[in-house]
Amino acid sequence: MSQHTQALTRFLASLDYQQLPEAVISRTEELFLDWLGSALASQGAHPIPLFERYAAKMGPGTGPAGILVNGQTTSAYFAALVNGASSHLVEQDDLHNSSVLHPATVVFPAVLAAAQDLGKSGRDLIVAAVAGYEAGIRIGEFLGRSHYRIFHTTATVGTLAAAVGVGKLMGFNPQQFTHLLGTAGTQAAGLWEFLRDAADSKQLHTAKAAADGLLAAYLTGEGLSGAQNILEGEQGMAAGMSSDANPACLSDRLGSRWALTETSFKFHASCRHTHPAADALLALMQREGLGAEDIASVTTRVHQAAIDVLGRVEVPQSVHQAKFSMGTVLGLIAVYGKAGLPEFHQHALSDARVGAFRDKVRMVLDNDVDDAYPQRWLGRVLVTTVQGRSLQGSIDEPRGDPGNTLSRAELEDKFRRLLAFSGARSDEQASGLLEQVWHLRHLDDLSVLTCIGRPS
Amino acid sequence: MSQHTQALTRFLASLDYQQLPEAVISRTEELFLDWLGSALASQGAHPIPLFERYAAKMGPGTGPAGILVNGQTTSAYFAALVNGASSHLVEQDDLHNSSVLHPATVVFPAVLAAAQDLGKSGRDLIVAAVAGYEAGIRIGEFLGRSHYRIFHTTATVGTLAAAVGVGKLMGFNPQQFTHLLGTAGTQAAGLWEFLRDAADSKQLHTAKAAADGLLAAYLTGEGLSGAQNILEGEQGMAAGMSSDANPACLSDRLGSRWALTETSFKFHASCRHTHPAADALLALMQREGLGAEDIASVTTRVHQAAIDVLGRVEVPQSVHQAKFSMGTVLGLIAVYGKAGLPEFHQHALSDARVGAFRDKVRMVLDNDVDDAYPQRWLGRVLVTTVQGRSLQGSIDEPRGDPGNTLSRAELEDKFRRLLAFSGARSDEQASGLLEQVWHLRHLDDLSVLTCIGRPS
Repeated sequence: MSQHTQALTRFLASLDYQQLPEAVISRTEELFLDWLGSALASQGAHPIPLFERYAAKMGPGTGPAGILVNGQTTSAYFAALVNGASSHLVEQDDLHNSSVLHPATVVFPAVLAAAQDLGKSGRDLIVAAVAGYEAGIRIGEFLGRSHYRIFHTTATVGTLAAAVGVGKLMGFNPQQFTHLLGTAGTQAAGLWEFLRDAADSKQLHTAKAAADGLLAAYLTGEGLSGAQNILEGEQGMAAGMSSDANPACLSDRLGSRWALTETSFKFHASCRHTHPAADALLALMQREGLGAEDIASVTTRVHQAAIDVLGRVEVPQSVHQAKFSMGTVLGLIAVYGKAGLPEFHQHALSDARVGAFRDKVRMVLDNDVDDAYPQRWLGRVLVTTVQGRSLQGSIDEPRGDPGNTLSRAELEDKFRRLLAFSGARSDEQASGLLEQVWHLRHLDDLSVLTCIGRPS
Repeated sequence: MSQHTQALTRFLASLDYQQLPEAVISRTEELFLDWLGSALASQGAHPIPLFERYAAKMGPGTGPAGILVNGQTTSAYFAALVNGASSHLVEQDDLHNSSVLHPATVVFPAVLAAAQDLGKSGRDLIVAAVAGYEAGIRIGEFLGRSHYRIFHTTATVGTLAAAVGVGKLMGFNPQQFTHLLGTAGTQAAGLWEFLRDAADSKQLHTAKAAADGLLAAYLTGEGLSGAQNILEGEQGMAAGMSSDANPACLSDRLGSRWALTETSFKFHASCRHTHPAADALLALMQREGLGAEDIASVTTRVHQAAIDVLGRVEVPQSVHQAKFSMGTVLGLIAVYGKAGLPEFHQHALSDARVGAFRDKVRMVLDNDVDDAYPQRWLGRVLVTTVQGRSLQGSIDEPRGDPGNTLSRAELEDKFRRLLAFSGARSDEQASGLLEQVWHLRHLDDLSVLTCIGRPS
């Protein structure tokens, strides 16, 4: 095993609550709330009921862990599976920039299900989540940009992040964490190919990452051994799925850099790769007092990964695909001033003005933007007005980034809107959940989180 | 979608029992028997009980599908998982040469569990298995040798093979098979890195391939969509996990070439990459009347993949690792004349003569052998005797290959020995199972296969 993997597993084993700065603890509570809202917002939306039916068919009829969207209980594996599927659907969950990992949607389903199964506390859950974030983010950075070109990092790396979180709940030592990485890493899968067809694989990916990570931890706890160098070995993850892996990332400032706090909240309900341009266009339109009808064309200057992920959607055929259409997102921004869930569901596909705006937008690679990525997600747009003026819009930190973050009040508002959107919980129930989550560190019984306001 | 994938999904949808030559049907019964023996042979052996405990914890306490090693019933998912883990452990399951895929250990656990769940017949199971073999073998050939260098094809491709088998039981049309390949392919995972440490991942790989394939089929049946070109697309399996993919393999002589009948039975209880050399050495020793003590050194001239898979084991630390040690396998052949399960468990690690012989063996790459691989697995050994003679041994078709196959009597004997090895079933119960399997095409109720002689 390399020094970097060894340093990582030692850090994970030694991590404890006392060591966490207050900013890390409170940010974990905020990320948990943001995740909970994202999961509940998908209630009833395709393909989530498919996963619910699968869990009902293959799992036990009752159990220690809760499924958020339907309030049923089951075993930890199926709760992780369904909650993992749910929390990435509305594209409102968090993102860590430099790893291009959505940590919440894979870490929280696994650690919540396992914590409920194992009778762990809110404090245990917080430490477990931090372990999952810190490991997952560093492994994502380690695998680098070449990995993300083909592989959906949240699926692949997500399996390891979820596994680490559950392993932390189980109190693993460094050797067990090494086995765990081996067993989780050899299950890591998830290809971007589905984007081309707007297929349902994104939900499958997060469901499986959470559930497979949990499976890896439970089997490791039982004594299953794993490869000792799955990340860096000659036939390991980097060898098979990356051409620019950087091992030093794995142990980058462990214990002093808290990567969890670098995680961004999503403000718009679209693929994060659209956010820098959306914010830059919005700033420009507000500055210049422009309306959608004033704009003849928009050129967004983007990083290569934005082209890789967004480039294949010409005319979106579904709401989900619309979230990966740069033109549609900018169309909503231009016409409605925002691109939230209601805008996507009511207007993204049906509003002719949005469709017309979409056709005015193109993406081009910008070398400066690309060089800054993925550490910084720069927004650069060039607008030509119908009067022939050329204007530039620019933002250096999209809304929701750590330096431009959302307040607790804004997060509460987002949470309430997410629940109202799907009708998963009443506003009163939302208040009850908010109270629990803001006291997460003091909760002894985590079953309350999945049973408040569940459909009776 | 490409013409090759399209041809494959059409073939799978149209395949029916009437179309199968008698040789395919009877060979499927033989392969099923061989698989059943392999699974039962692992009863009680690490790490199988870990998977049993996991299934008991996460799954329902009873259900329509049977777990072979303990006779318990559960849902189809967990039966596929545990039976998939079981059937590859003793390294006696089948292998298809040119795809380097072990089809039985991934296809049969999935199709048996699903057939029991869905109330299907032996005839249905045979057609489903043929579909899984024909698709899996061609996808393995498609991904090529570059894939196998890093990825465990039985794990990755096995997920798709298992999925196709279950999809066939569900009567999928070509569109559903396309979605199914997308959903299975984006879950495909499994790295060779574990071999270096003799870790337990091989059982995890076959367990997960069978179970994930089944999951893919059930979710597809519910309506989950998948990428339309997962095999050949720009961000699909070949793009991410192969550098020598050949799309024409996917549709190679569909309906006229029955790849299932090209599958080899394993004669020795070791990694298949050791078999050509083992047979060549045995033939040479018998021809020349040599004993182990007469031999000063053995050079095996092998294909590159043998070096990749076997090269990392110097001194085996476990019986499983011994099966991947060319020197140990040849040591057993030289000292005992065979390398079956009893030889491995009683002598591979403890017999000083075997250890001493192991140190006399080395592998070198042979370009002719490598060029013939993987279509043909040629055995070439150079032996120097203690008297200083140089001798050559050579075989062109290892024992168990289609042109040098095992008779039904030999398969029955192997089956009885496998069951006796673990004590999973009495010889009388073995007879009962043999009777059922030789009538597989006439069985209406497949529950009998997992409940005969189960521990009470």
